[in-house]
Amino acid sequence: MNTPERLIESTQELLWERGYVGTSPRAIQQRAGVGQGSMYHHFAGKPDLALAAVRRTAERMRAQAEAQLSGPGTAVERIRDYLLRERDVLRGCPIGRLTQDPDVVGDPALRQPVEETFAWLRGRLAAVLAEGRAGGELPADLDAEDTAAAVVAVLQGGYVLARAADSVEPFDRAISGVLALLTARAAPATG
Amino acid sequence: MNTPERLIESTQELLWERGYVGTSPRAIQQRAGVGQGSMYHHFAGKPDLALAAVRRTAERMRAQAEAQLSGPGTAVERIRDYLLRERDVLRGCPIGRLTQDPDVVGDPALRQPVEETFAWLRGRLAAVLAEGRAGGELPADLDAEDTAAAVVAVLQGGYVLARAADSVEPFDRAISGVLALLTARAAPATG
Repeated sequence: MNTPERLIESTQELLWERGYVGTSPRAIQQRAGVGQGSMYHHFAGKPDLALAAVRRTAERMRAQAEAQLSGPGTAVERIRDYLLRERDVLRGCPIGRLTQDPDVVGDPALRQPVEETFAWLRGRLAAVLAEGRAGGELPADLDAEDTAAAVVAVLQGGYVLARAADSVEPFDRAISGVLALLTARAAPATG
Repeated sequence: MNTPERLIESTQELLWERGYVGTSPRAIQQRAGVGQGSMYHHFAGKPDLALAAVRRTAERMRAQAEAQLSGPGTAVERIRDYLLRERDVLRGCPIGRLTQDPDVVGDPALRQPVEETFAWLRGRLAAVLAEGRAGGELPADLDAEDTAAAVVAVLQGGYVLARAADSVEPFDRAISGVLALLTARAAPATG
């Protein structure tokens, strides 16, 4: 891996573990094994490098979600596949955790990829739910956008509860809970 | 207000705004208008003061939740009242945000009040849902604990989405979404 790549990967890891406020330029340099001069040769500073790292993480998260949401199955099955895919639950969400960083939400440039990622995810889930509604799987009175927001929120809040408990149990329960509510609204499969 | 009270209140505010990692003893002293010697006279250090502050915040959050959850109405009405009560959404949850602080979740003493608060809230909501099930308002196959975890997760994740968007819109949608799913499982009111 070349130097800019090493710097971006190290920043991705540190932002996930310690957040923006808790990540110093020095810690990035140490993890990447890169000197200060070299870091500032490739990036203007911590905000610039953090932006590259957050964009990279957001792209990966989006690609992973798309894999399940564009897969085979009914709307509810695809949402179940997405919610139940393997996750490193106790590490939390590398994008969601940034919303607790005042220096991220207070900086329009840094907040932008965070906002866009969740807007994309909500829109993608709403489209899957709307497909299910159009096909008669889900009832006409189900609000696709509200339901999509609730599904994304359960996932993000599930991480919060898991980290609070130092256990995946509340995450698993929250996912089961929302899937049971959603499944109860679906017509029995005809396949 | 006396000096320990001023220190605790200032620490509560700073933990909410900047988290544990982002809150220095000096910032606490400055906000409280208290000198370093006086702070260390009353508290052993930042972890000790943070523990007092987190416990205080957790007590208040619990009392506020209890007010709605023990109020009048059906199970779903009480959960609706709890979810729709006025909140400073863009500030996020003062307890939930601490789960993103590696120094909080990595310290058993500091994590304890965070874990206990969410365990209490999930248990309280599960009890309300079980009451609704026992009274015939909710169906026998509704899992009270899973549903309770989903409700708490929607709230916590709603804050994450609101802060990402710098708007209460996704929070409001997520709450509406989960309430619609829950209401669809309830028998029509007979009152």
